[in-house]
Amino acid sequence: IEKDLQAAVSSSGDGSVNRELFRQTVVNTLERRLFYIPSFKIYRGVAGLYDYGPPGCAVKANVLAFWRQHFVLEENMLEVDCPCVTPEIVLKASGHVDKFTDLMVKDEKTGTCYRADHLIKDFCKEKLEKDLSITAEKAAEFRHVLAVLDDLSPEEMGAKIKEYGILAPDTKNPLSDPYPFNLMFQTSIGPSGLSPGYMRPETAQGIFVNFKDLYYYNGSKLPFAAAQIGQAFRNEISPRQGLLRVREFTLAEIEHFVDPEDKSHPKFSEVANLEFLMFPREEQMSGQSAKRIPLGEAVAKGIVNNQTLGYFIGRVYLFLTRLGINSDRLRFRQHLANEMAHYAADCWDAEIECSYGWIECVGIADRSAYDLRAHSEKSGVALVAAEKFSEPREVEKLVIAPVKKELGLAFKGSQKNVVEALEAMNEKEALELKANLEAKGEVEFFVCTLGKNVSIKKSMVTISKEKKKEHQRVFTPSVIEPSFGIGRIIYCLYEHSYYMRPSKAGDEQLNVFRFPSLVAPIKCTVFPLVQNEQYEKVAKDISRSLTASGISHKIDITGTSIGRRYARTDELGVPFAITVDSTSSVTIRERDSKDQIRVNVEEAASVVKEVTDGLRTWADVWSTFPHHSSGSAEDDE
Amino acid sequence: IEKDLQAAVSSSGDGSVNRELFRQTVVNTLERRLFYIPSFKIYRGVAGLYDYGPPGCAVKANVLAFWRQHFVLEENMLEVDCPCVTPEIVLKASGHVDKFTDLMVKDEKTGTCYRADHLIKDFCKEKLEKDLSITAEKAAEFRHVLAVLDDLSPEEMGAKIKEYGILAPDTKNPLSDPYPFNLMFQTSIGPSGLSPGYMRPETAQGIFVNFKDLYYYNGSKLPFAAAQIGQAFRNEISPRQGLLRVREFTLAEIEHFVDPEDKSHPKFSEVANLEFLMFPREEQMSGQSAKRIPLGEAVAKGIVNNQTLGYFIGRVYLFLTRLGINSDRLRFRQHLANEMAHYAADCWDAEIECSYGWIECVGIADRSAYDLRAHSEKSGVALVAAEKFSEPREVEKLVIAPVKKELGLAFKGSQKNVVEALEAMNEKEALELKANLEAKGEVEFFVCTLGKNVSIKKSMVTISKEKKKEHQRVFTPSVIEPSFGIGRIIYCLYEHSYYMRPSKAGDEQLNVFRFPSLVAPIKCTVFPLVQNEQYEKVAKDISRSLTASGISHKIDITGTSIGRRYARTDELGVPFAITVDSTSSVTIRERDSKDQIRVNVEEAASVVKEVTDGLRTWADVWSTFPHHSSGSAEDDE
Repeated sequence: IEKDLQAAVSSSGDGSVNRELFRQTVVNTLERRLFYIPSFKIYRGVAGLYDYGPPGCAVKANVLAFWRQHFVLEENMLEVDCPCVTPEIVLKASGHVDKFTDLMVKDEKTGTCYRADHLIKDFCKEKLEKDLSITAEKAAEFRHVLAVLDDLSPEEMGAKIKEYGILAPDTKNPLSDPYPFNLMFQTSIGPSGLSPGYMRPETAQGIFVNFKDLYYYNGSKLPFAAAQIGQAFRNEISPRQGLLRVREFTLAEIEHFVDPEDKSHPKFSEVANLEFLMFPREEQMSGQSAKRIPLGEAVAKGIVNNQTLGYFIGRVYLFLTRLGINSDRLRFRQHLANEMAHYAADCWDAEIECSYGWIECVGIADRSAYDLRAHSEKSGVALVAAEKFSEPREVEKLVIAPVKKELGLAFKGSQKNVVEALEAMNEKEALELKANLEAKGEVEFFVCTLGKNVSIKKSMVTISKEKKKEHQRVFTPSVIEPSFGIGRIIYCLYEHSYYMRPSKAGDEQLNVFRFPSLVAPIKCTVFPLVQNEQYEKVAKDISRSLTASGISHKIDITGTSIGRRYARTDELGVPFAITVDSTSSVTIRERDSKDQIRVNVEEAASVVKEVTDGLRTWADVWSTFPHHSSGSAEDDE
Repeated sequence: IEKDLQAAVSSSGDGSVNRELFRQTVVNTLERRLFYIPSFKIYRGVAGLYDYGPPGCAVKANVLAFWRQHFVLEENMLEVDCPCVTPEIVLKASGHVDKFTDLMVKDEKTGTCYRADHLIKDFCKEKLEKDLSITAEKAAEFRHVLAVLDDLSPEEMGAKIKEYGILAPDTKNPLSDPYPFNLMFQTSIGPSGLSPGYMRPETAQGIFVNFKDLYYYNGSKLPFAAAQIGQAFRNEISPRQGLLRVREFTLAEIEHFVDPEDKSHPKFSEVANLEFLMFPREEQMSGQSAKRIPLGEAVAKGIVNNQTLGYFIGRVYLFLTRLGINSDRLRFRQHLANEMAHYAADCWDAEIECSYGWIECVGIADRSAYDLRAHSEKSGVALVAAEKFSEPREVEKLVIAPVKKELGLAFKGSQKNVVEALEAMNEKEALELKANLEAKGEVEFFVCTLGKNVSIKKSMVTISKEKKKEHQRVFTPSVIEPSFGIGRIIYCLYEHSYYMRPSKAGDEQLNVFRFPSLVAPIKCTVFPLVQNEQYEKVAKDISRSLTASGISHKIDITGTSIGRRYARTDELGVPFAITVDSTSSVTIRERDSKDQIRVNVEEAASVVKEVTDGLRTWADVWSTFPHHSSGSAEDDE
C-alpha cells in the first residue's frame, strides 16, 4: 500500500485521483491527531489560517531548533528578532507597497473576489483535460497561456477572460476587469490614524534596515550573515492548496552580506562533493528534466553563479534531507529569466515534490545590492561597507562639473533640475556627452525631472577624469538570501514520512510517520504492559529520568491493549517505546522495524537519550543489547 | 559603585535621580552592544517597537527554551501555535472588542493624542512633589485621585481634567473630552473588506477556542494544561517606559484546565516549602509591606485560593530565580478586589523591582469558567468536560416550568422575556420565588431584558425538585492562567544582572552582566593570547569542538590586548573565556571571579560544555584543575 501511494504521487500520468486520495489519507491523520487544526474552528474557521496542534507544534519547534543549530550556530550568524508591525515607509522603500499585488476580479453582482490568474488557469486546464473537441491549434494556445500567465498585464488578463467568456465560478455572474490587490494586511500605528503600517510580508526588511549596526557589531568586516525567524503575513485573495498557501506563516531567513567583487566561500569545499537533482535554466528551456550534478561542477561551470550561492544550496540540501525529506523528491530549480527580479544575479528554489506537485519551499537568491541601495536612498543613511587598503591606491575618478553661471542664464528656474541630471550621469553617459560636445559644441540632453530635452552647450559643463589617492573602497554589499517557508517544509515532510502497514491480524491498515528522532514530536512512550502498581511505579520512575534529561515523552497507563498503544504512537511518529513488563528490565521497541531489545530499568532512559540525540544508532544499540522476541507484547498488534 | 547603583534603585526615598542614572547606564550598554535596537532606526523609528539584536535575540531564545523545559516538558503540557490574525467574532466573544480600551484625549488644535490617566497622574504627582503651597487637604485629594484613577469613568476623568485645568503638555492647547480608544491593531481579512480582524492582544484565546479538541487529545481527562508562545499586539496610545511598554511583544501563556470542584494539585508538595516575598490583599489595604510566607502556609490559610494556583506561583518563582532574577526584588502581589475581573476567583502578579519600580512580569490568575463559557455561548459549541460516574448517581434537579398560556395572556409580546428570565434563575433564587409565591400568591419579579419588575402569580410557574439518575457530571472547567511577559522579564533580568567594576589599572569602570550560563547569549569566547599561527590553529580546533557540541561561542583572533578582549565579553555576559597560550593546554577564566584554571587542549570544550549545561559547577571544576595565576594574561586588564 505504501509503495502504491507513494508511486501514485510520483506518477506523472493521470495520477491526480490517486494523489488526491493519498493527500486525503495523510491530511485526515494529521487533522485527527491534531498535527494541525483549522484556526477558530468553532466559529467555522478562516480560510488560510491554521493552528499547529500539540504534535505539530513540537515538530515545528524541533525544525526551528535544528535550523538554528545547522545555520546560525554553525556559521556564527547574527540572529535578530524584529516586530511584525512595520511602518509604511519601510515597505515603500522595499517596493512592497507598490508591487506586492495579485490581480483580482470581482463577481459583478455579489462582490465575491477571485484571483484572475486562477480563473484563467482553471479554464485552460479544464479545456485541455476534458474538452476532446478542441483543435490542436487551440490546445497549443491554452498551453501557451498557461506558460506565460505570470507575465500577463491586467489588460491582457482582462482580454483573455472576456475572450474565453469566463464567469464567476460560484454564481456564473459576469466578472469585473482585473485590478491589482495589495497582499499586505494593512493597519494603523498609534491612535491618530495618520501612520499607516502593515504586517510584514517577509522578515528580510528588518535585517536590511539594521545593516549599519550589524556590520559594526561584526567588527566592520565582510562577509557576515544575519538571520531571523518570525511570522510573515499575506492577505491571499482566495487561499487554496490547504497548508501550503496560508495567510500567516513562519519564515526563517538568512541575509548573507558579501563583497560583490568576491563571492567565494571558505567552506565551499565542504559541500562541493554533494550530488543531487538540479534543474538549471537551460534544461528547463529545452524541455529536459532535472539531473544529478555535483555541486562543485555546477559552480565551476558557472551554472550556479558563485561559490557563496553554491555553498548555501549545499547546506540547504543537507538541512532538508536530515529532516527526513526524500532526496529523490527534492530538486533545486533555477529561476528562468522572466521569473527573476531585474536586480537578481541568480536564484534557485529548493522544490519538494508532494501531492500538489513540485512546491517551492526554500528560495536561495543572489539579490545583489538592491535592498541596501533602496533603503539607503529612502532613509538617507548610507548602508555601505568599506575595504581599507593597506596602502593608499591611486584611482581614476570621473568629475562632472556643471558651470552654474552659464546654466543659470540659460535655464533660470529649471537650472537645478539640469544640474542634477548632469551630475546623475554614469561614466558611460558622461564620456559620450563629452565626446559629442567636443565634436558638435551643442547637444540635446534629456532631463527626466523636466520630462523634456534641453540644449547643452560646451561651456555649460566640464567633464574630466582625475587621479586621486584613496585609502579605502566604499561599496554596497551584495546580499545572498536563503529564505525558508517553514510550514511548507513541514507539510512536505509529513507526506514524505507517511506510510501505512497492515496490523498483525491483517484486518486493518495502520498509519505510521517515519520521522527521524530529530523532528519526532515525542521521542518515546512509556507503557506498563498490564495495569499493575509495581509496573506503574517503574514506568513513572523512567518517565522522571526522561524528563530530567530533556526527552519529550508520553506515559500511557490506560488499560488499552499494547498493540493498540503502539499503533497510536506510530501514528504520531514516536520513534521508541519502552514497555514495562518486569520490575528489573524493560523492552525498547523501534517504530519502523518493530525490533525490540531488552534493557535494565536503570539504563532505559539513557539508551533512549543516546539514540534520540544521535549519539548512537539503533543498529549499534541492536547489536549491543539482547533481543526481545515479539511475544505477548506484540500479540494483539 | 555596583552597590551604590543597586542601592539607589532599591531606595524608596528621593532615589529617582539615581534610578534614572542607573537605568541610563544599563540602557546605554544594552543599546551599544545591540541587546536591542529601536526598530526601523534609520527611518527615525516607531515608538514602542524594538528589535532584539544578536545578544538579545540569543537571551530571548534561551529564556524561551528554558520556559519550554521548565513548564511544557515538566508538566506534559499541550503546546499549540495559533495565528496572530484573529477574526472579530473571537475577540467579540472574549470581550476585547468592547472593553480592551484606554481613555484618550486629543489636543483640540493639533490632534495629538494622550492617555487621559497619564495626564491626570502627571499633574497630581507634580503637585505633590513640587508645589509646596498646596494644603494638606488638597494633597490628600491628589493622593486619593492617584489611588482610584483606574476606576474613574470617562466622565469623571473629563471632569478632573477640566477642574485641574490640564492642557496638552506639548502645546498648552485645550483638550477634548476623554473617550475610549481600542488598543487592538485592526485589519481586514481577505480582499472584500467585509471581514474585520485584529492582531491578537494575547495568545490565550487561541487555546480557549481549541478546548474541545485538546480535551479529546488528552483522553477526555482533566486536569491538563495547554501552552502557547507567540507575538501579541497592543496599539498603545503613547508608549512610555522604554522596553516595558511596547506595541508588540512575546507572550508565553499557560491555560491549565481543572475541575472547579477539585483544584488540588498532585505536585503541590514539591513547592510547598518555598518561602518568598508575598504581598496579600490584606497587607496592601492595611499599608503593610510584602513579607516572606511559606507557600504551603499561604495555601493552607486560604491566602492563596487553591493548590493549583499555589503550585504555579511556586513554579514561577523557581523559573524567575533560575533565570537570574534577584529573589529579594521579586514579590507576588495579590490583586485588590477592584483590580480583578468580576469573574476571577483570585489573581497574583509576579512583580519584579527595577528602576521603573515594581513591574508586573507574570500574571497568575484563576479565571474560573469565564472564557470557556463566553466562547460556548458565542459559537454554540459546548466547551465542557464530563466526569463519568462508575455507577449512575441519583441527583436532585431543579425544574422550572413556566406556564406559557398564563404568561402569554398576562404579558403578550413580552412573554418570551419573562419566560427566559424565569428559566435563568439559579437554585437559590428559584426556591426563594417558590416560597414567596406560596406565601403571598403574587410576587414582583425583575426581568432584566425588559429593565423592569413584572408581577408573577402562582399559576404562572411551577418550581419543583425532581430526582434523576445520572451517568456523568457535565461542567465547564475552570482555567488557571499563568501569563508571562517575556520582554519585561528579560529587561528586569538585564537590570538585575548588571554591575560595574574597576579595570585593573583602576582608570575606568567596566560593565559586566552576571548572566547564569542558562541565559548567557554566548557561553564562551576563544582567544589566542597573541597573534600566532599555531595558537590560531588551536583556537579554531577548540571552536570546532564547541560547535559540534552545540555551545554558542565567539572566536576573537584580533590583536587586541587580552584585557580589552575580556572586558568586551564581560559586557556581553559571556561566562567563560578560553585563552590559548600554548599548544598543549589553555586557560579557562570565569567571568565574575576572574579565576582561571589550566586545562588540556583536548578537554577544553567538554569542560566548558559541562559547566554551561549545569552538569558541573565552577566550584567543582575549580577544585579539580590546576589554577592559573593571573600573570601576563591579565596584565593589561
